[in-house]
Amino acid sequence: MRRIVILRLGHRAFRDKRITTHVGLTARALGAEGMLLASDDPSIKQNIEDVGVRWGGGFYVTNNVNWEHEIRKWKDIGGKVCHLSMYGINLPDALDDIRQCGQLMIVVGAEKVPPEIYDLADWNIAVGNQPHSEVAAIAITMDRIAATDPLRQPLPGGQLSIVPMERGKKVIEKH
Amino acid sequence: MRRIVILRLGHRAFRDKRITTHVGLTARALGAEGMLLASDDPSIKQNIEDVGVRWGGGFYVTNNVNWEHEIRKWKDIGGKVCHLSMYGINLPDALDDIRQCGQLMIVVGAEKVPPEIYDLADWNIAVGNQPHSEVAAIAITMDRIAATDPLRQPLPGGQLSIVPMERGKKVIEKH
Repeated sequence: MRRIVILRLGHRAFRDKRITTHVGLTARALGAEGMLLASDDPSIKQNIEDVGVRWGGGFYVTNNVNWEHEIRKWKDIGGKVCHLSMYGINLPDALDDIRQCGQLMIVVGAEKVPPEIYDLADWNIAVGNQPHSEVAAIAITMDRIAATDPLRQPLPGGQLSIVPMERGKKVIEKH
Repeated sequence: MRRIVILRLGHRAFRDKRITTHVGLTARALGAEGMLLASDDPSIKQNIEDVGVRWGGGFYVTNNVNWEHEIRKWKDIGGKVCHLSMYGINLPDALDDIRQCGQLMIVVGAEKVPPEIYDLADWNIAVGNQPHSEVAAIAITMDRIAATDPLRQPLPGGQLSIVPMERGKKVIEKH
């Protein structure tokens, strides 16, 4: 079982609230264990962890971390770091390599990231060398590196679950 | 060559500006031809089409469409409609079917969509039955249905292009 943690840089509480929330919810839905937020915005932690209470899984958000400290700590336990931006090696060209990693930190910035990140990362990866979205970049990366289909992994626990259907909505409450 | 168009519903100019921009940029980067915006927000069109001028491709945004009219028009020319939400059939269970479609409209809402959408859609699809992100849902759907790797398809034209590299950033101006 691969461990995946997201490190979110450059979040600004006003401008990025919804994008950072989507980053966290996407990582959670695809099987990451948690997100480290290198900014102070307790509402992000609250919103995402509330989703976990209702919909299951153990995804955590750690607010206001020191990004450099977290990267070094991760590397000290043998983890590797994959930084996603539009400038790196195209994902398909690095996939075989990244797939072998058992403890992966995925770093995504908002607009700009500190230049040291490019040196600290084991991989600087572009999910296509076009501008698009850190949410999409995480989604495609996690989907492509997964050993088993992440859309078929149920998250344990929670109060609610969906019964997939062709038309309409069906949500059941668990007891 | 498959045609893909995005129909974006429920966009609110203040709250959703960045998410809708990410929806459009992601669809563009993965090979969609354009996005129809069922709300009035000319800044979305401007921002996304400006990216196209700089980075290539012919992606368009049509502002303030009538969603019902666009869906019916699309169906009249033989197109199919795939609505993404958290309630539908899980994507892996419908993939073989959707892959056969040559003209696909992908519909994504913000929070809630008009209930008629569930009936008008040919497919109501969940990219996993967990709450996450319409940006991630489009990214994974487009990535999985693609016949050839969408991260390897260059967008023609534009003023700038990136030279992928292991460390740092390299952007070249085209002449």
